[in-house]
Amino acid sequence: MKKVVTFGEILLRLSTERHLRFSQATNFNATYGGGEFNVAVSLANFGIDAEFVTRLPKNDIGDCALKEILKYKVAADHVQFGGDRLGIYFLETGAGTRGSKVIYDRENSAIANIEIDTIDWESVFGDAQWFHWSGVTPAISSNAAAVCLEAVKMAHKMGLTISSDLNYRSKLWKYGKEPKEVMPELLQYSHVILGDLDTAFFMTGKEKKEPDYQNTASLPTLYDDLFDSCPDLKFVATTLRYSVNASHQKIGGILYDGKTIYNAEIREVTPVVDRVGSGDAFMGGLIYSLLQDSQDKQQAINFAAAACCLKHTISGDFNLATLEEISQLAAGDSSGKVSR
Amino acid sequence: MKKVVTFGEILLRLSTERHLRFSQATNFNATYGGGEFNVAVSLANFGIDAEFVTRLPKNDIGDCALKEILKYKVAADHVQFGGDRLGIYFLETGAGTRGSKVIYDRENSAIANIEIDTIDWESVFGDAQWFHWSGVTPAISSNAAAVCLEAVKMAHKMGLTISSDLNYRSKLWKYGKEPKEVMPELLQYSHVILGDLDTAFFMTGKEKKEPDYQNTASLPTLYDDLFDSCPDLKFVATTLRYSVNASHQKIGGILYDGKTIYNAEIREVTPVVDRVGSGDAFMGGLIYSLLQDSQDKQQAINFAAAACCLKHTISGDFNLATLEEISQLAAGDSSGKVSR
Amino acid sequence: MKKVVTFGEILLRLSTERHLRFSQATNFNATYGGGEFNVAVSLANFGIDAEFVTRLPKNDIGDCALKEILKYKVAADHVQFGGDRLGIYFLETGAGTRGSKVIYDRENSAIANIEIDTIDWESVFGDAQWFHWSGVTPAISSNAAAVCLEAVKMAHKMGLTISSDLNYRSKLWKYGKEPKEVMPELLQYSHVILGDLDTAFFMTGKEKKEPDYQNTASLPTLYDDLFDSCPDLKFVATTLRYSVNASHQKIGGILYDGKTIYNAEIREVTPVVDRVGSGDAFMGGLIYSLLQDSQDKQQAINFAAAACCLKHTISGDFNLATLEEISQLAAGDSSGKVSR
Amino acid sequence: MKKVVTFGEILLRLSTERHLRFSQATNFNATYGGGEFNVAVSLANFGIDAEFVTRLPKNDIGDCALKEILKYKVAADHVQFGGDRLGIYFLETGAGTRGSKVIYDRENSAIANIEIDTIDWESVFGDAQWFHWSGVTPAISSNAAAVCLEAVKMAHKMGLTISSDLNYRSKLWKYGKEPKEVMPELLQYSHVILGDLDTAFFMTGKEKKEPDYQNTASLPTLYDDLFDSCPDLKFVATTLRYSVNASHQKIGGILYDGKTIYNAEIREVTPVVDRVGSGDAFMGGLIYSLLQDSQDKQQAINFAAAACCLKHTISGDFNLATLEEISQLAAGDSSGKVSR
Amino acid sequence: MKKVVTFGEILLRLSTERHLRFSQATNFNATYGGGEFNVAVSLANFGIDAEFVTRLPKNDIGDCALKEILKYKVAADHVQFGGDRLGIYFLETGAGTRGSKVIYDRENSAIANIEIDTIDWESVFGDAQWFHWSGVTPAISSNAAAVCLEAVKMAHKMGLTISSDLNYRSKLWKYGKEPKEVMPELLQYSHVILGDLDTAFFMTGKEKKEPDYQNTASLPTLYDDLFDSCPDLKFVATTLRYSVNASHQKIGGILYDGKTIYNAEIREVTPVVDRVGSGDAFMGGLIYSLLQDSQDKQQAINFAAAACCLKHTISGDFNLATLEEISQLAAGDSSGKVSR
Amino acid sequence: MKKVVTFGEILLRLSTERHLRFSQATNFNATYGGGEFNVAVSLANFGIDAEFVTRLPKNDIGDCALKEILKYKVAADHVQFGGDRLGIYFLETGAGTRGSKVIYDRENSAIANIEIDTIDWESVFGDAQWFHWSGVTPAISSNAAAVCLEAVKMAHKMGLTISSDLNYRSKLWKYGKEPKEVMPELLQYSHVILGDLDTAFFMTGKEKKEPDYQNTASLPTLYDDLFDSCPDLKFVATTLRYSVNASHQKIGGILYDGKTIYNAEIREVTPVVDRVGSGDAFMGGLIYSLLQDSQDKQQAINFAAAACCLKHTISGDFNLATLEEISQLAAGDSSGKVSR
Repeated sequence: MKKVVTFGEILLRLSTERHLRFSQATNFNATYGGGEFNVAVSLANFGIDAEFVTRLPKNDIGDCALKEILKYKVAADHVQFGGDRLGIYFLETGAGTRGSKVIYDRENSAIANIEIDTIDWESVFGDAQWFHWSGVTPAISSNAAAVCLEAVKMAHKMGLTISSDLNYRSKLWKYGKEPKEVMPELLQYSHVILGDLDTAFFMTGKEKKEPDYQNTASLPTLYDDLFDSCPDLKFVATTLRYSVNASHQKIGGILYDGKTIYNAEIREVTPVVDRVGSGDAFMGGLIYSLLQDSQDKQQAINFAAAACCLKHTISGDFNLATLEEISQLAAGDSSGKVSR
Repeated sequence: MKKVVTFGEILLRLSTERHLRFSQATNFNATYGGGEFNVAVSLANFGIDAEFVTRLPKNDIGDCALKEILKYKVAADHVQFGGDRLGIYFLETGAGTRGSKVIYDRENSAIANIEIDTIDWESVFGDAQWFHWSGVTPAISSNAAAVCLEAVKMAHKMGLTISSDLNYRSKLWKYGKEPKEVMPELLQYSHVILGDLDTAFFMTGKEKKEPDYQNTASLPTLYDDLFDSCPDLKFVATTLRYSVNASHQKIGGILYDGKTIYNAEIREVTPVVDRVGSGDAFMGGLIYSLLQDSQDKQQAINFAAAACCLKHTISGDFNLATLEEISQLAAGDSSGKVSR
Repeated sequence: MKKVVTFGEILLRLSTERHLRFSQATNFNATYGGGEFNVAVSLANFGIDAEFVTRLPKNDIGDCALKEILKYKVAADHVQFGGDRLGIYFLETGAGTRGSKVIYDRENSAIANIEIDTIDWESVFGDAQWFHWSGVTPAISSNAAAVCLEAVKMAHKMGLTISSDLNYRSKLWKYGKEPKEVMPELLQYSHVILGDLDTAFFMTGKEKKEPDYQNTASLPTLYDDLFDSCPDLKFVATTLRYSVNASHQKIGGILYDGKTIYNAEIREVTPVVDRVGSGDAFMGGLIYSLLQDSQDKQQAINFAAAACCLKHTISGDFNLATLEEISQLAAGDSSGKVSR
Repeated sequence: MKKVVTFGEILLRLSTERHLRFSQATNFNATYGGGEFNVAVSLANFGIDAEFVTRLPKNDIGDCALKEILKYKVAADHVQFGGDRLGIYFLETGAGTRGSKVIYDRENSAIANIEIDTIDWESVFGDAQWFHWSGVTPAISSNAAAVCLEAVKMAHKMGLTISSDLNYRSKLWKYGKEPKEVMPELLQYSHVILGDLDTAFFMTGKEKKEPDYQNTASLPTLYDDLFDSCPDLKFVATTLRYSVNASHQKIGGILYDGKTIYNAEIREVTPVVDRVGSGDAFMGGLIYSLLQDSQDKQQAINFAAAACCLKHTISGDFNLATLEEISQLAAGDSSGKVSR
Repeated sequence: MKKVVTFGEILLRLSTERHLRFSQATNFNATYGGGEFNVAVSLANFGIDAEFVTRLPKNDIGDCALKEILKYKVAADHVQFGGDRLGIYFLETGAGTRGSKVIYDRENSAIANIEIDTIDWESVFGDAQWFHWSGVTPAISSNAAAVCLEAVKMAHKMGLTISSDLNYRSKLWKYGKEPKEVMPELLQYSHVILGDLDTAFFMTGKEKKEPDYQNTASLPTLYDDLFDSCPDLKFVATTLRYSVNASHQKIGGILYDGKTIYNAEIREVTPVVDRVGSGDAFMGGLIYSLLQDSQDKQQAINFAAAACCLKHTISGDFNLATLEEISQLAAGDSSGKVSR
Repeated sequence: MKKVVTFGEILLRLSTERHLRFSQATNFNATYGGGEFNVAVSLANFGIDAEFVTRLPKNDIGDCALKEILKYKVAADHVQFGGDRLGIYFLETGAGTRGSKVIYDRENSAIANIEIDTIDWESVFGDAQWFHWSGVTPAISSNAAAVCLEAVKMAHKMGLTISSDLNYRSKLWKYGKEPKEVMPELLQYSHVILGDLDTAFFMTGKEKKEPDYQNTASLPTLYDDLFDSCPDLKFVATTLRYSVNASHQKIGGILYDGKTIYNAEIREVTPVVDRVGSGDAFMGGLIYSLLQDSQDKQQAINFAAAACCLKHTISGDFNLATLEEISQLAAGDSSGKVSR
């Protein structure tokens, strides 16, 4: 099976321990993560060949990020080295009614200053079958958006399946363009889109409508807007999250293939160990399922939602749940018994 | 706005990590706290000028306590230095059906041996509008009780609003007097009293009656007893706690202004990160609300109860929730979403 | 009161912190535990004289295990020293829908190579009234099984009460014999057996029947099978566990004295701090209760089930809950209030 | 005694524990420091009123820095809030022949974008007698250099003593100007300069000469260059460091008052716990000494050098040695006996 | 071989990690120790039966101390339970020229309030051959001094060897008596005394003389003073310490049998991991050697001094060096090679 | 440049922190290492393509080892999966006169049970130029020895340079053969041998002679023995270590090319952070140097010895010093200055 390539930013994540507030912390756990890389880790963890393309500064912090990529069995053959710093995000993990806080410190990161024509996408995609990107990358800088467009175009030209996660972060998008000026051009090449309808309307500059996810019969019309503007689109998926509180989520998912809505049952997720990266876990689960020959759509959405649920029990950005654990949960066994 | 002064003891808190029992611990987290100081931190955290008056030993442990006071933006201009030791409490944090355990080791602390006529209360209260104390201080020693009385009298004379938290701790009160011999004299100057009715009856030496907090109509008669004995009293408040288990509380609150009962809706608080100091968080929220020009009573009790709830999600004695977080919860949003 | 002796293996337990997966861990918490030793710790914690018989390697790791035995007030007077290594188990603590994982690394441990005729059981049992063993020991090796049989026979001969925990671990039993070839001979001397009916049928080579623990009336017939094959049997007990997820269990218990079924009410156990050793906590609670003169059977099963529940709130293999805490829970108070 | 004001940047310092290399670290100790702030902490620690002027971002990381300032008893009354981020430096602590590594990540920090005319220096200096700055601040950005010049000019106009630490960091000075274009104008107002002669010649654009610190007779001529260009200069001081290895330094110092060279004896410093901030400790010790009425020059250089030595034994940027500890070492007692 | 009994206080020791100053610490390592208990641990570690007599409060902190006693294979059969608190000492570990700091918080500890006639010394000493106490115990309170005298008298009466460590701590001795009023009566029963001559003269109220330990010929006359006042005295020993700095000590020792001075060669001890308890390690080594049939005096002082040196490499109060390690060092091999 | 292949065991290393003895440890740092893997990490760290061949159990602990291999940029393409367990070694890090202790727990590890004809060595060596093994592997089991011989023979046949580290561990070699029965056959293919002469004589069954490394003129005759029995031998190297104590080593090295002795100057190494793996660091430095076109022999031994020295400052088994750091030290600069 040919590899899956993802492109984006990997950040140093500095998180407080034991639910401490920032002002109480005298140390930070240092891990690494970022939406598109998290998807690559999920896939590698499932045994899929995965490669991550990014730009890292030539210093010890950049080297730490590289070592993290390699540790999780993700190829780094086309990582570009340059720039001044690795982007950082600070994370304070909430509990109960107190939500987690993320402070971004990612301006002027190595990837923000990436230049077009410096990544040899033809070579990157030579032995690849799938390309994944998300809306975080074009939100970083106009340079990053331009390179993302390069990648999408080349992937499309070379016949790869392209998946796009809308991933809207309002605190990014500071370089002078709005999502609707950038995202439609990027999204048009997609075969798979992950995102909720509100974000989709906003990012594509469409009029806002109120989706009612409980009423599945009402959804196809709304999703069809995306099918209209993306000629190759095969699937749209949405992660459904209801936040009881920071430690208790309800998670489901919807997959729509242009004809039928497939629903993953809503599951209680409590306690939440770490919810950062749970959308990426969903995406990783979805790509994995759609890479299988069967492409059983009900199983695909069940697997993606189960992957998302299990991610909430794992510290850090990555979904390190195994295929077996996810399959067992997707099949309805949420008992979490001791394996011994 | 003029400052709020609180007076009492700050202790070294030595707590086990990760729900370990004392016998399993090879280290203790070292933080600092104490009822009246916790209220000062809450207020400083909300942007109110707050000052804490206490007595600290002249050694490195006393200096650590002083640095903690300053760190949290609380003034320490009238802290007295002397005595032999800082009081200590050991804390083992429970979980589920296992309750937390507190072991007090606070006898002969610096403040237990404080002398009357050594704090210049007139200077302390010069630019203050509010004085807060609690029933823990007169429980420590007859000296501490005497200085507390000095403070209350001077605050009253200088026209400050006085708030009193009954805060009964049965393991204190060892110096030969019972609460009912000490507390009535202290309480009579109060404008605001926080406490449950059982404690109020006990501490004021009144006959025990069975309050039924579900039946709010029955409460005014009971609260009126306090109004009768405290001529300046404007508000009595009670924190309502139902303990499902150590990790799951239900929290509400009642505010009574002599005419009307204001109720804060009962909220589920789970998981509990740390419940020590949650009463002080309630008090801090209440004082903050009553310092506002509006003095909206329903909002005041909602804010106080929400402050109490959020404290449960924060490690240590202090309520470090922000005004925004508390207001959001008081307004009914308990979703705890990630802020990024 | 004469002492209780338990015999079995104590292992080094290496567990990840903070719910980390193995691949994320850069250190392991190092504690010690093992089914029969855990029972001894429970009893010593309740004030009963307890002794643990095992075999430890003569190296620093074996010495650590010995120090752990002594620390928890368990006598180690007949511990045998020899062999090459202490058995190890790695533990990754799950959360929510992700179950905990145990990896055994206990082959060729000191006790696996224990020889018959090397423990002076007559001396061990001289001042003892009770002997406890579990199905883990005969599962380790044929040597361990043979020494276990020695012990059971001598204990029986010397008139001790014998309790047996079936404790089936499918990943052990690698030395060529099946449980049904070994266990019936060992079990026949039992006065008390702990285990569920499925395991009992399997280990005694009986035909499988489907017990319905909700329907208590149906159980005596099934339990009577054990009474038929164990002439001295007085009690059979079963721990009832329903796993909502790894962080949420429902725990009850059944005690049958050959005539009547005694039921402990099902209790919610959430959050789970550590469920390893909870069966041993049940056993410890049961032995403690049956050692009391009263032998009140309803109280016994209540106490055993409450001990099991409280164990889930305690990190490590041992039930370090106090008599008071367990009695309070057994009496129905699960509020987990702060003790101060 | 009137206060001492310092102006500059405070950074988040992220350091690896236990001499780990960056690639081995899974967490960072999070402390705060920066040359001019470190001097303020030294002085506050000695009981001198000290104030630190800086610019902090309005986010939780900026608030942590503010709390650190307050904790160490340094006034923060004129701190400006604004900008996007707090500067960061990563620190890997070396040992033996492996030197420590610092990675700066401080571009676009809050203070880098400070604007002139936004700090009310007249108010800052109202009750001050001394102003201290260092060459790090004008190295950050042209804005920071401009505000530094504002400060120096106003301090000079208001009659404060001005101390300047040359503090050359080659990895800063990226904004297009060389030190020699900026520093001479700033330095001309100095009363006290700390720095070695090489740096002084380089920063003032003078021809390089080879100072021989062993040959004290040769030094006045070289130092006199600085006296020539700084009309108010009273003292020049140099920290002498000989690095045996990262864990073993030899530390001395020179003070020159335009007439006489005062030498502090070279001391062995081993082991080195943390040498970052040792120059600031020297500066803090020197300012403290020169603030004393006596202004005993030999004592001043002895105290400054002893402060520098003791800083090497303290983790973090700050010199937290007490007056007594430094005086004892300055007086020749380096025995480091247990105080009990 | 019959057991060795020691009597005194065991304290909770709260120490900062990584050489942090108290003001930097957010947690404390929690261990237990105390001069006489440390000696018992040394002996148990060497395989000698040892028992420790003390008084512990009946709370969880007292129970932790008890568990520590048992863990290190020291008998606790005559420990008395009562009193309010366990004594505490805070420890900040120095480095280089910065000495360690100890803050005592041990007033009103359980043992300070011990009563005479409550320990059954006859039973304690029934199967004992040696009793050890130190000058710390009579320094705590008059009660502790009185019980110490009880013990010494009974030990003497029952024919035990009695060793006494002078152990002067100036911050104790607060209860109104001076050492010279208390110690001579206690010391007169000694067979072995450990201490330096200055302390001996001070504690026995003798005129101060200046011992010159380099000049061994001059020492017998000075030591003979002790022999004069203690009729049963067989040995006096002195630990020689020269403190280069807190991380570098030079350690030797002297043993005098009333006739001959035996010298242990001065050894370099660097780095120092923890020097607290090193005198107790010396004492433990000396008792061990004198318990051997040979009583080779040169070997005894070599072993005691080597035990003292090795203690400096071990964290905590206890000397956990093995017999083999100490013997190897006593025999001159200080190479510290890896044992594998 | 073609890759370097190493073959051997990777173990889980469980080490105590902060110089704690085993009995004091409540957690272990978990890292991974092993002689031949350590060499591969060194080379990868210097930018050389390196591959490690081993056998790992198919469980999470084996997967952790695999992730460690990948993290450090070492290829794992021919790692075999199977067997029951990963070998373990426990490490207690000494200090000063107390040596470190290693406890092996590596019997029945995955690689001990490796079978011949299961590694496709021809494929492994296809793009390789150098093969490295050490005497640890044939010491594990006869199976491991047999596979090692397979590897050496195929490497020789395919023209690779072969380096052999004698690496004698007396606690291994338990399977019934002595080194002299196994090693000569393996060593005969060597081009480079690392080891001291004593070990060489012992392992090759030669008569013991006393080498005098100070007298370099005497060495060629002794080394020539190895040249006689290894027809392709080009270089013999010896690491010279003088252990002042566990924290202070003196390190040098000798390289002999059959004609000339090249000496690396003895260097003081203090403090020692971790000396495990320092021989492998020497080997890695030597291979790196000999891979350079120049093959300057004096530079080679200088670089190897400097690599060995720097390893002592790094925690864990690996030499993570950079090329620049080693070259700087090899060139004589041991000042360990801060790089910023």
